[in-house]
Amino acid sequence: MSFRIFIIKANEARTKADFNLKDLPGTSGRIDLLCRTLSSAFLLSHGFRKNVRVWLNLNGPPIPPKTIRFEGQEIKPKTLNPDELSTAKLIIKALKVGETIKEPSKEHEILPGIYVSNLTFEDIIRRTLRNSTLYYLHEKGKDISQIRFNRNVAFVLGDHLGLKIEDERFLENLAEKVSIGRKSYLTSHVVSYVNITLDRLMI
Amino acid sequence: MSFRIFIIKANEARTKADFNLKDLPGTSGRIDLLCRTLSSAFLLSHGFRKNVRVWLNLNGPPIPPKTIRFEGQEIKPKTLNPDELSTAKLIIKALKVGETIKEPSKEHEILPGIYVSNLTFEDIIRRTLRNSTLYYLHEKGKDISQIRFNRNVAFVLGDHLGLKIEDERFLENLAEKVSIGRKSYLTSHVVSYVNITLDRLMI
Repeated sequence: MSFRIFIIKANEARTKADFNLKDLPGTSGRIDLLCRTLSSAFLLSHGFRKNVRVWLNLNGPPIPPKTIRFEGQEIKPKTLNPDELSTAKLIIKALKVGETIKEPSKEHEILPGIYVSNLTFEDIIRRTLRNSTLYYLHEKGKDISQIRFNRNVAFVLGDHLGLKIEDERFLENLAEKVSIGRKSYLTSHVVSYVNITLDRLMI
Repeated sequence: MSFRIFIIKANEARTKADFNLKDLPGTSGRIDLLCRTLSSAFLLSHGFRKNVRVWLNLNGPPIPPKTIRFEGQEIKPKTLNPDELSTAKLIIKALKVGETIKEPSKEHEILPGIYVSNLTFEDIIRRTLRNSTLYYLHEKGKDISQIRFNRNVAFVLGDHLGLKIEDERFLENLAEKVSIGRKSYLTSHVVSYVNITLDRLMI
């Protein structure tokens, strides 16, 4: 089975679970966006994509970075649901464990298939490059219809602020820029589009 | 400018605002799904699609049907936001006004561009057919890449339960079945995919 990886760099997402579930957009540094992106990455109607991995890389205050990995092959049924709040609770659970960890690279499993760590964006990219072809989703990239995808593909996406210049420089020779169109779309909508496009290509 | 219409038939969505915002999936008949679909229909990254209309047709207890129309050209900026809860509050506002209305077809404006009424699914379809080509999104339809879209397009989508047999019969000679793939996708993901596909076709 081929494999799909989505790596989301969240510039402002809180790295401590001190935000208000009733106002995620206003208090969490846009963790609501990450919840919707997880849904787009994993969920089908009455189904689940086991061949997907998502890395959420949170870089907001107070103790960045915190990285949460969701591993489709290991996640138990009913863990991840379509609504934002139940997913936000999973992120809170991960961040609570994340508060206490000190090691720079060890991952701690908080539920089957869900891991929290202090891994940096660069760490995630290096690990991903070992066995996947890396793409950076960007309006000005090569059109997705022109790309010949291999079996194991990984996509880097920014949040509502996009990637920082230093991140773009780091990716320059590591990831091909791919575009799904000239408009700028919400991260979760991009992931939905890419997933369905790859399904259509049978990748 | 061309026009896009999305019509969502929600079989079980509550028609009274008596559900719990903290547990939309469990108490509202899946109004969480409708919120995400509105986001997919209208929102761009830092932008809004003025050329979209969404009809939400709610058919759950206790006083079905209630229909809420969202008119992109009239909705004021910042009314519709990406997160589920703020959108659910708009639906609650509409349902509260909806409780008191008696007329079968008059629409009541609850905010600029947002209307509530007792219109039925069939009413919505008939109104839509006046000036749009109607499609029914279904896994077994003709592939979307084979369709030559006109300028004004309307898409019917089911919720997590899909359309009922009587709805499908009603649509049989009115709407062409269109498929975005053989898998069954979440309604909001389908709308994201269709919107981006139409953008790419410059429709």
